[in-house]
Amino acid sequence: MSTTPEVSPEQSQREADLLARVVRSFDDCESPRLRQLMIALSEHLHAFIRETRLTEAEWGEAIDFLTRTGHITDDRRQEFILLSDVLGASMQTIAVNNEAYGDATEATVWGPFFVEGSPEIANGGDMSFGAAGEPCWVEGTVCDHEGNRLPGAMLEVWEADEDGRYDVQYADHRVAARAHLTADAEGAFRFWGITPTPYPIPYDGPVGQLLEAVGRSPMRASHLHFLVSHPGCRTLVTHIFVEGDPLLASDTVFGVKD
Amino acid sequence: MSTTPEVSPEQSQREADLLARVVRSFDDCESPRLRQLMIALSEHLHAFIRETRLTEAEWGEAIDFLTRTGHITDDRRQEFILLSDVLGASMQTIAVNNEAYGDATEATVWGPFFVEGSPEIANGGDMSFGAAGEPCWVEGTVCDHEGNRLPGAMLEVWEADEDGRYDVQYADHRVAARAHLTADAEGAFRFWGITPTPYPIPYDGPVGQLLEAVGRSPMRASHLHFLVSHPGCRTLVTHIFVEGDPLLASDTVFGVKD
Repeated sequence: MSTTPEVSPEQSQREADLLARVVRSFDDCESPRLRQLMIALSEHLHAFIRETRLTEAEWGEAIDFLTRTGHITDDRRQEFILLSDVLGASMQTIAVNNEAYGDATEATVWGPFFVEGSPEIANGGDMSFGAAGEPCWVEGTVCDHEGNRLPGAMLEVWEADEDGRYDVQYADHRVAARAHLTADAEGAFRFWGITPTPYPIPYDGPVGQLLEAVGRSPMRASHLHFLVSHPGCRTLVTHIFVEGDPLLASDTVFGVKD
Repeated sequence: MSTTPEVSPEQSQREADLLARVVRSFDDCESPRLRQLMIALSEHLHAFIRETRLTEAEWGEAIDFLTRTGHITDDRRQEFILLSDVLGASMQTIAVNNEAYGDATEATVWGPFFVEGSPEIANGGDMSFGAAGEPCWVEGTVCDHEGNRLPGAMLEVWEADEDGRYDVQYADHRVAARAHLTADAEGAFRFWGITPTPYPIPYDGPVGQLLEAVGRSPMRASHLHFLVSHPGCRTLVTHIFVEGDPLLASDTVFGVKD
């Protein structure tokens, strides 16, 4: 935690009293969970302001940033999710809700490009549907966290083309580089895709300006998305990364897991 | 601070590692102050998620709330400021930037209804300009924090009418219940206004829904706004409240000071 600058005991008490009044304002909240969330939110928000001695001008810039983030958000663009992603808040929420089991594959972010109703392919088929890129053979086996193979597990796979674009970003709305398939009786799956390439998150809005101001790249490490489900098991949303990708250590949404 | 639920040491380490990567992502930030703010923000945001074990559904509701808050905000309505106000964040920012001097009058929020260029009235004049309400005589003396009178101090005063509306909320844009005046050679001021009445913050948007969900009233305690300035002194923005107002203890933006 950041250290709190020196303030007089009287001033510190005044600030603590204000927070105590905010906390008490939630006394009549009927939902214990909402009350808990609002109190924790208030405690951290006030601690942030007090520790950093946030200036009124900085507070104004934050209000302006949130306003611009809201105004650029529409049905096709969700800048608040992007903000949550680049602050690692999306990954942390996934982490606290998906405790890893030993050596099991870890969950990661869905990203904004999953679409329901992808075409089905046979095990061993081609999910690229003509998306530009170097053909890439993908194979593996679906197991539960004790290592038992899961016959007939369902896999949804989706990825960007060699220009870093998903099909939903194409002007003509054609479907490409996304599919679902069923693992065989041994839980094995195999298909043709394309070699993932790095691409940036949308960086022409407030979040892109923030990344630039703090000296961060908007690039994500190359990856192929997987959603794996099987009756009786927790559904796994994850990525497969490309070994040796120099962006693995600096993925801008902190989505890289081993 | 909220207590953190029990999680395994391995899980706790995984979550701490994720935060450490987020903190390191700001290593190349050229502005030390921006870097400090982003790190403190990330620390508190991640601590909030970890302590509350925020669910993915709750995270989604928060994203949706911020989106609606952005979409209702325009040139005439600033819902993010309102959100900051009802969480006490606006008052806390004012508190850390305006350390109180002994028994001096404490600063409070401007509110959204101050307007530059109010009409001038003579000391002893009427600032109501026909606004509906019970006439009210207001008098006082402007002193510095050592108790020295400040001759010629400038006062801006503004308030809502008996229906809880400021002139800027009138359809016909007439000016009423706002003025500026100059204290006399002894720092004394006096004027006719109207007795302040309670009024709600705008509660037909996301912030109003939040207040309703947590069982809070949208009402502000009755008050008269003052902006007091004098060469060589820090400008004071404050409110005068009505003694005995039952809302004094539950002012929804935490603006009440003694």
